[in-house]
Amino acid sequence: MSVKFALFQPTLLLDEKICRKNISNMVNKAATNNVLFRPHFKTHQSIEIGEWFRELGITAITVSSIKMATFFAEHGWKDITVAIPANSLEKDRINRLAKNINLNLITADIDGTKKLASILEYPVNFWIKIDVGYHRTGVLYDDYNVISSILEVVSKNKNLNFCGFLTHAGQSYHCRDKSEIIKVHNESTTILLDLKKKYISQFPHLKISVGDTPTCTVADDFTMVDEIRPGNFVFYDIMQVQISACEKKDIAVAIACPVVAKHSDRNEIIVIGGGIHFSKDFIERSDGNKSFGDLVVLDENGWSAPIEGCFMSKLSQEHGTIFVSDEVFHQIEVGDIVGILPVHSCMTANLMGGYTTLSGKKLDYFDIRKEYYV
Amino acid sequence: MSVKFALFQPTLLLDEKICRKNISNMVNKAATNNVLFRPHFKTHQSIEIGEWFRELGITAITVSSIKMATFFAEHGWKDITVAIPANSLEKDRINRLAKNINLNLITADIDGTKKLASILEYPVNFWIKIDVGYHRTGVLYDDYNVISSILEVVSKNKNLNFCGFLTHAGQSYHCRDKSEIIKVHNESTTILLDLKKKYISQFPHLKISVGDTPTCTVADDFTMVDEIRPGNFVFYDIMQVQISACEKKDIAVAIACPVVAKHSDRNEIIVIGGGIHFSKDFIERSDGNKSFGDLVVLDENGWSAPIEGCFMSKLSQEHGTIFVSDEVFHQIEVGDIVGILPVHSCMTANLMGGYTTLSGKKLDYFDIRKEYYV
Repeated sequence: MSVKFALFQPTLLLDEKICRKNISNMVNKAATNNVLFRPHFKTHQSIEIGEWFRELGITAITVSSIKMATFFAEHGWKDITVAIPANSLEKDRINRLAKNINLNLITADIDGTKKLASILEYPVNFWIKIDVGYHRTGVLYDDYNVISSILEVVSKNKNLNFCGFLTHAGQSYHCRDKSEIIKVHNESTTILLDLKKKYISQFPHLKISVGDTPTCTVADDFTMVDEIRPGNFVFYDIMQVQISACEKKDIAVAIACPVVAKHSDRNEIIVIGGGIHFSKDFIERSDGNKSFGDLVVLDENGWSAPIEGCFMSKLSQEHGTIFVSDEVFHQIEVGDIVGILPVHSCMTANLMGGYTTLSGKKLDYFDIRKEYYV
Repeated sequence: MSVKFALFQPTLLLDEKICRKNISNMVNKAATNNVLFRPHFKTHQSIEIGEWFRELGITAITVSSIKMATFFAEHGWKDITVAIPANSLEKDRINRLAKNINLNLITADIDGTKKLASILEYPVNFWIKIDVGYHRTGVLYDDYNVISSILEVVSKNKNLNFCGFLTHAGQSYHCRDKSEIIKVHNESTTILLDLKKKYISQFPHLKISVGDTPTCTVADDFTMVDEIRPGNFVFYDIMQVQISACEKKDIAVAIACPVVAKHSDRNEIIVIGGGIHFSKDFIERSDGNKSFGDLVVLDENGWSAPIEGCFMSKLSQEHGTIFVSDEVFHQIEVGDIVGILPVHSCMTANLMGGYTTLSGKKLDYFDIRKEYYV
């Protein structure tokens, strides 16, 4: 059994129904909390999937590079946050965007702020990235000296329109149950709220922005923040299941892989499907094995629940090895197509460079090789 | 300091001189041993770099997918081995290639052989992939029953032109010194040679083909085999250094990354350069830390030797974190461009989708999204 149309090479299948449900759930959560929903489009990077958000009233988005911002700006998005410390070497792209759309940039330190101030020819909205414990990047939440220095640069530059504090509580990716995720949510929003209280008199319109899929999915109360920016929730993946942010039935993408060999001495199925399709992200399973994805059976309605005990155990450049049970080993034949739920859907989508819906429609994806204009 | 031309975004730099030297070294080794050099083009996947091989007399190549074979066939390559068990679902592409070029396909089991036999409309050269201990895929070297069954299918099909036995001794990637690599080389070639002796009377033109960068770089004696198929040697990378297959000065590619933030509390430099540029491949350093690449300083002649103790310690989708010494921390500024030698150059090239030489020339790369014709 397979999907309704012929498959013959690794193909990233997208279940539009699950994906639209994931989107509407998050739209509803933001509405209930009366916060701005500014979804992170780095996960799907697709103009067509972006339209599914627009249909539900979304007008503000987040991206992970200046170039990706130009891609979406070229397709009518007018309010974009680039959620990585601004790269002032891209001054031409930044100024084109700043001239034409409502561009939001972030800084993580004083040097980056000064560089940015020096290259801007048009006003941008400007956010300070706060490190609330993830320790990737951002100003440490209690480093008021650095915050003050940045605000001093802001006060002297007419093109930096200070908006507030933004964080990515990426430590939620280390959580393994919902209570841990709620704890991260409470801690990080409390920190941002304290900063807001400290600076609100000076900046009456100051906002706070949070955004990671685990907390935005699991927590219910976002009334204390002004905007949320999750991205991965649009597809979810096996990593989010491990975190307890979603269930396997919420995963909206699967990679269809052709079976090209079987090794009965070790219950392994070899597929075309490797690191250039999935990425090398893996989780450690409860049995101690590495897994690069869960095996599912494709059918005319999409795919089954994951098959217990069967997973992608090894990946090289284009080969994938699926470990299966005795029973499953005999059910799968060379020439079949099997499905794999990916560990990290953002990276997988980036590698596959496009989607095929269950009705066989192809959807676009950003192309890092092209130049986009706005 | 940086290279001779302006850089402003993550850019895969290629040192043409090192690359051409890596190519000519391997061409010379094959010539000295009087074996066919059939380089694996999955590492560079570039028509233009392919021409550097052609200039040295190379006419036979290896690739890792049927589609990649069509890409190179479209650009004049007429003798191509697809070194992954043949995916018979790609029957249209396979038959187009089989009609127009000297196509070499491989099988790893009896089922795959039967499937392939059933779809072929034109003759192909046909190799049995032998598992010499890597245990990814292939017929176990002493499973003569399976080999006989495959040869029986061959004997009844006019389109399967049996050529011999092919292996990839990928266990060489677990080696950590040259003597271990030589041991893998001796063991795997002995196995293939025994098979050759066993079947040569039945197939007088039977050949044996080996191909992994560690053994092909380190071993000197290849007189016992008929062809070698290494790929990674064209660029090498940090993983090959760890294996002891090459030295850091042999690495022909580096990713230029813009510095966007600095965190003095933990000696970390934040760059634009993440999993979508490098891949998530890592090595474990001797100090126990994960490394996604080595820091180098870019200059007008290329890049320096790696800076001791400075390495890419974390990668997310587009952010990279470089851990540096105190001294280096103060030398690098936001707005600089630093270089990183990648851990796995094949995967990095695939993600970056093109090269920039040190003179600023752009070189092409295969595009998985396009369809190619021959």
